[in-house]
Amino acid sequence: MNIKSLDFLKNTDNLNDSELIELTLSNFLRHDKKLYDVLFDSMSYSVSAGGKRVRPMLTMEFAKLCGGSRRAAAVFGSAVEFIHTYSLIHDDLPCMDNDDMRRGKPSNHIAFSEDTALLAGDALQSLAFEVMLCDDAVSLVGADACVKAASVLAYFCGADGMVGGQVIDLLYENKSANEEIITEIHLLKTAALIKAACMMGAIISGADKIQLKAAEKYAECIGLTFQIVDDILDVTSTAEELGKPIGSDEENNKSTLVSLLGIDKCRELSEKYTNEAISALKTFEGDTKTLEDFALKLLNRRN
Amino acid sequence: MNIKSLDFLKNTDNLNDSELIELTLSNFLRHDKKLYDVLFDSMSYSVSAGGKRVRPMLTMEFAKLCGGSRRAAAVFGSAVEFIHTYSLIHDDLPCMDNDDMRRGKPSNHIAFSEDTALLAGDALQSLAFEVMLCDDAVSLVGADACVKAASVLAYFCGADGMVGGQVIDLLYENKSANEEIITEIHLLKTAALIKAACMMGAIISGADKIQLKAAEKYAECIGLTFQIVDDILDVTSTAEELGKPIGSDEENNKSTLVSLLGIDKCRELSEKYTNEAISALKTFEGDTKTLEDFALKLLNRRN
Repeated sequence: MNIKSLDFLKNTDNLNDSELIELTLSNFLRHDKKLYDVLFDSMSYSVSAGGKRVRPMLTMEFAKLCGGSRRAAAVFGSAVEFIHTYSLIHDDLPCMDNDDMRRGKPSNHIAFSEDTALLAGDALQSLAFEVMLCDDAVSLVGADACVKAASVLAYFCGADGMVGGQVIDLLYENKSANEEIITEIHLLKTAALIKAACMMGAIISGADKIQLKAAEKYAECIGLTFQIVDDILDVTSTAEELGKPIGSDEENNKSTLVSLLGIDKCRELSEKYTNEAISALKTFEGDTKTLEDFALKLLNRRN
Repeated sequence: MNIKSLDFLKNTDNLNDSELIELTLSNFLRHDKKLYDVLFDSMSYSVSAGGKRVRPMLTMEFAKLCGGSRRAAAVFGSAVEFIHTYSLIHDDLPCMDNDDMRRGKPSNHIAFSEDTALLAGDALQSLAFEVMLCDDAVSLVGADACVKAASVLAYFCGADGMVGGQVIDLLYENKSANEEIITEIHLLKTAALIKAACMMGAIISGADKIQLKAAEKYAECIGLTFQIVDDILDVTSTAEELGKPIGSDEENNKSTLVSLLGIDKCRELSEKYTNEAISALKTFEGDTKTLEDFALKLLNRRN
């Protein structure tokens, strides 16, 4: 068996966090399978399609905050990024959002084919668990932390988390939703995976229950903020500034918190969540400036 | 968090293996999510669609052979069954085999919708990992065994295993393949998940490396036999006996070992593999009759 090796992580002290994450992502996609390299090409295509690596960076920040290893954070952060990437590939498929473009490039199923894209997504989900559970990951953080971190990701990416959120979102595509339902969609579809990213960083670094709860709270609040700001920008921004068409929610008859509560109330709400996110960080003794800045950046973003 | 509880496994000593597996499968699909019960309905629809539970039964047999717990075997066997089920749902999708029927019932995407079927498959994969890594599973077999078993499943169900096999199969759909390639497809597409099933039963029961190797060998040989017999029956059986159309491989211009080597040589090959499977069982001290009989049943099946 060719269970993933983490040898490539040796002598990486000189890399910054971002470089370490990119190195880890690309190494997990290396292969010697000439017979069907199209599968790995398809997986790599989407993983390297210019995502901002928000989730692995969050794993990294919480790991550092809890005194954990950057290498371990790169491994578990990659797992979250693989899950995020698979969800984007499946989201773009014709039977879902039917999007031909993603981040300015042809979607996976356009660049490859629908069947390959489907299978690449499936394989990325398996890969996420494979890298978190390989022998070298156990050596890095211990079996208990591996199990706990991987179980948190499994929970938050599945029916009780991200996938559940996608299903509710589909159910309310052409149906009006109330505030509670929209918030539930935001919590599951977006915040759940961010929770996993933050909590996993804490778990693999030996965080206690209170710290873990704080990581979850921070993640939930920035996840909710992200979605509300998204809905605000869809109304207030220009297509040029946003880099994608505006007014899509109204056009699609989609209920959003903005259409239900108005822009002012939504701005208020997103500020409240951001304050709560920053407050949650007080539990930690270390330097939380990067995470505070990130929360504020999400609140104040223009695109 | 509502990480799976295994409380339902208390007081189940009176259940036989098959009942214990069904109980476990159905309990893992219980939920309180009224807002999007269609997702769980869709997952349950395919899990309860009359599969023969070959993989969980193999997990159970190897667990018993290695002195392990039947309850733990039901949990890890369910995980394999969830992976198997997700692969069938995705296989049937229009962008893959486009099959409207599965086991005499409408396929998942016909009974529900394409997007729901896609997401139900995705969620079943997550669920597989969730149940293997929950706190109660750790209590049953320990964190080390949980990690090891789940990592084996992740490896064999992903790009290096089942999904990889599906990709090769797609690549050679209308292209002639040689014996080596066809065997590789059989190994990855079919034998890989059977390997995971057998090896996981051994792992959670504290098997040593030699026993683990024997479990893998048995699984590989019965997996290969299963596929060769499938190809033989496609040529020699009647549609009535087989319960599905015959001659489909020839009609689809599909290279099979039968078309390459002829029926006699294939019968010989399947007998050789079956003998090797049965030989591999000699490593174990316990009663291997059920596993021997199962290997022979696969060899001699008529449908």
